[in-house]
Amino acid sequence: MDVDIGNALASEVSPGVSRATLDRLDEDVATAHERIERGRANAEHGYAALNLPETADPDVIQAAVDPLDDAEHLLLVGIGGSALGAATLTDALDGDLSIHVLDNVDPAHTDDLLASIPLSDAVVNVVSRSGTTAETLSNFLVVRAAMEDAGVDWTERTLVTTGDEGPLRDLAGTHDLPSLRVPDGVPGRFSVLSTVGLAAAALDGHDVEAILAGARQAADGLTGSLFECPAYAYGATAYALDARGATVNAMMPYAESLETYAEWFAQLWAESLGKDGLGQTPVRTLGATDQHSQLQLYRAGPRNTMVTLVRPTERTDLGIPATDIEGLSYLGDSSLGDLLDAEFEATEASLAAAGRPNVRVELDRVDERGLGELLYGMEAACVLAGELYGIDTFHQPAVEWGKRAARGLLGGGEFEEARAVDEKTTLRIE
Amino acid sequence: MDVDIGNALASEVSPGVSRATLDRLDEDVATAHERIERGRANAEHGYAALNLPETADPDVIQAAVDPLDDAEHLLLVGIGGSALGAATLTDALDGDLSIHVLDNVDPAHTDDLLASIPLSDAVVNVVSRSGTTAETLSNFLVVRAAMEDAGVDWTERTLVTTGDEGPLRDLAGTHDLPSLRVPDGVPGRFSVLSTVGLAAAALDGHDVEAILAGARQAADGLTGSLFECPAYAYGATAYALDARGATVNAMMPYAESLETYAEWFAQLWAESLGKDGLGQTPVRTLGATDQHSQLQLYRAGPRNTMVTLVRPTERTDLGIPATDIEGLSYLGDSSLGDLLDAEFEATEASLAAAGRPNVRVELDRVDERGLGELLYGMEAACVLAGELYGIDTFHQPAVEWGKRAARGLLGGGEFEEARAVDEKTTLRIE
Repeated sequence: MDVDIGNALASEVSPGVSRATLDRLDEDVATAHERIERGRANAEHGYAALNLPETADPDVIQAAVDPLDDAEHLLLVGIGGSALGAATLTDALDGDLSIHVLDNVDPAHTDDLLASIPLSDAVVNVVSRSGTTAETLSNFLVVRAAMEDAGVDWTERTLVTTGDEGPLRDLAGTHDLPSLRVPDGVPGRFSVLSTVGLAAAALDGHDVEAILAGARQAADGLTGSLFECPAYAYGATAYALDARGATVNAMMPYAESLETYAEWFAQLWAESLGKDGLGQTPVRTLGATDQHSQLQLYRAGPRNTMVTLVRPTERTDLGIPATDIEGLSYLGDSSLGDLLDAEFEATEASLAAAGRPNVRVELDRVDERGLGELLYGMEAACVLAGELYGIDTFHQPAVEWGKRAARGLLGGGEFEEARAVDEKTTLRIE
Repeated sequence: MDVDIGNALASEVSPGVSRATLDRLDEDVATAHERIERGRANAEHGYAALNLPETADPDVIQAAVDPLDDAEHLLLVGIGGSALGAATLTDALDGDLSIHVLDNVDPAHTDDLLASIPLSDAVVNVVSRSGTTAETLSNFLVVRAAMEDAGVDWTERTLVTTGDEGPLRDLAGTHDLPSLRVPDGVPGRFSVLSTVGLAAAALDGHDVEAILAGARQAADGLTGSLFECPAYAYGATAYALDARGATVNAMMPYAESLETYAEWFAQLWAESLGKDGLGQTPVRTLGATDQHSQLQLYRAGPRNTMVTLVRPTERTDLGIPATDIEGLSYLGDSSLGDLLDAEFEATEASLAAAGRPNVRVELDRVDERGLGELLYGMEAACVLAGELYGIDTFHQPAVEWGKRAARGLLGGGEFEEARAVDEKTTLRIE
């Protein structure tokens, strides 16, 4: 992963960071790096995620998925970090299976999905560290019943990924299900390089060791200077731009297969950094598509956005057939890849010409190794940014209120928060 | 469509709008409404889009798609407003066809897609007002060649939607293709209720007249007061919250089938209002999924976000099977719909309890009529907001620079912008 912050410099754009700012910031990066290394050495909560390239065991994952390798469909039942990492990997890579992610509790969607899949050819991976996540467990109960209704032995087709204790761990024990352990100290949004993200990748036929090797390469590149470490360069620049007014970070990969990566990044960034009144709002976009949707705003709206342009430097290509249609002959000399790259560079220059900050992130290829490096790099960037903000990157206390309210509304106990729902202020226009 | 702005009041949240503010704003709404009505009466550029419920002709659309009604797949080739409206309708409604949207120029994606579809069972709808959009025409040339390679007569399977002139209009004439006309005065992002969005809906078997009837209902509800018109209540509240610091608008439908609607809204809002340094940044999210991704930020990050919570008040449901798994028995008494509604209300209350502004939008059902009403309502809200900002809602001048640069890079002529690309400032960390 290479990072180019030339279009984030104050000499080019506004808001921007000056070279003097970067030099000062680099001292903070050195201090933050020491804290991060200490956290990793002690396997502290959260920091432990940055050790996954060393601690995750591909053989354990492979052994757990081997009994299920005759499937043609994978039903991934999880939500948030228990789904997005796996979806990111399997959407980015051409795999063996049809992957269906049940990460919502929409009845029509779940019903339609279950009706469309031959359940006897499906494997279910149910993922929840606590084993109690309401959305995940509800969907799992529905899926299990659908398998029973279809005469499919769900105990032969279910892989459980969960913690050491809880309802799902008990279930795995009772029915002798293949199971994987969610490692300690790894928050969901940092779990893509653990059993949580990698089991789906292994089931889909991808090279888990290569994903981890890419991540190791990024881990080996963590040094105490943003000028030497692409991940830290990204995290520090995003932090500095946010402090100067770029409160929005539009993540814009120029590869259709990385669309889910942008969604993964949005969780990583929002849930890690959005606290204490701080944090940069991530927006997931897609190049070149969203040039025809969001670019007007990014170029001419408020000066509150940095755009992160991501692309692979190598990709398979497809020629555009020659044509005698008037005015279009120039297209016939090129390829879809040429066009996409031209749009990438044109958008980058277009933002710079309007004085709008943007950062270029390049990976070699969208393959196992490239993804491992990119995902680890963005995790490290996020942890660094958290250190610079001075916040706790690894918790998410603000989501608990709503969980208690929802549980109370469903009759799962007495919760004060549920009563607040009934007291909603209304000003309704019909 | 009903709108509840109770949780946008300054008595409840910050930033918020006071009742006195709303009363003052209502005078501006009355003035803006007069301008909008004048624009509609004169069919002025852009305002003409608000007349589509009256001017769009379902019979013309049906006649154009009838010759193609044996298809099982629809390849929609367009980008931006030429794709998002059609995708919004067909993703929201259960239809007859498998729909594939080619709205990007990613070579791997286009190649994989064409390899996966039996082209003899496919119909292509190529959509570009000018007939020269580089991405759309490139994809169309690739699709046409793939059909020829597969021995499929593309002239029998292509519906053209374009303006009165240009390469696509010429092509339709030369090959006697079924074609539809993009109406005058309707920008792409406001074209869902025209031939641009409705042809795909008709091909997919939906009731176009019911979509327009829902839109007419919303059009009939446009009055000079935000207290009487849900669309204007939404637009005025978003404008007032933006002015008070809610520079981000997170559009969060609680229905999986409305995920593309949020993307459609993001284009509508960004490209219409993002100009002159103004505009509110739309973020597309999804309930309940993104409670496990974005909610931490919205509840505890900077006070710069309003959340728009959208749901249907009626939906098909799916019971959660009873279970004796410890701690989960409360789920077995309910349904996925109950859970989703509880999460909706819990999230809304959770934001309000943290003093964060949010607005509730409800439609009766996600069906043709409900969608027509919702989409028209949001268009009217956007036009009203544009009047309040005092900007030109209907143009998008900032995207032209990049288009010229990309064309120059591909050898499509001499453009100064292409030279700027070569002069990029670089600060690269490897």
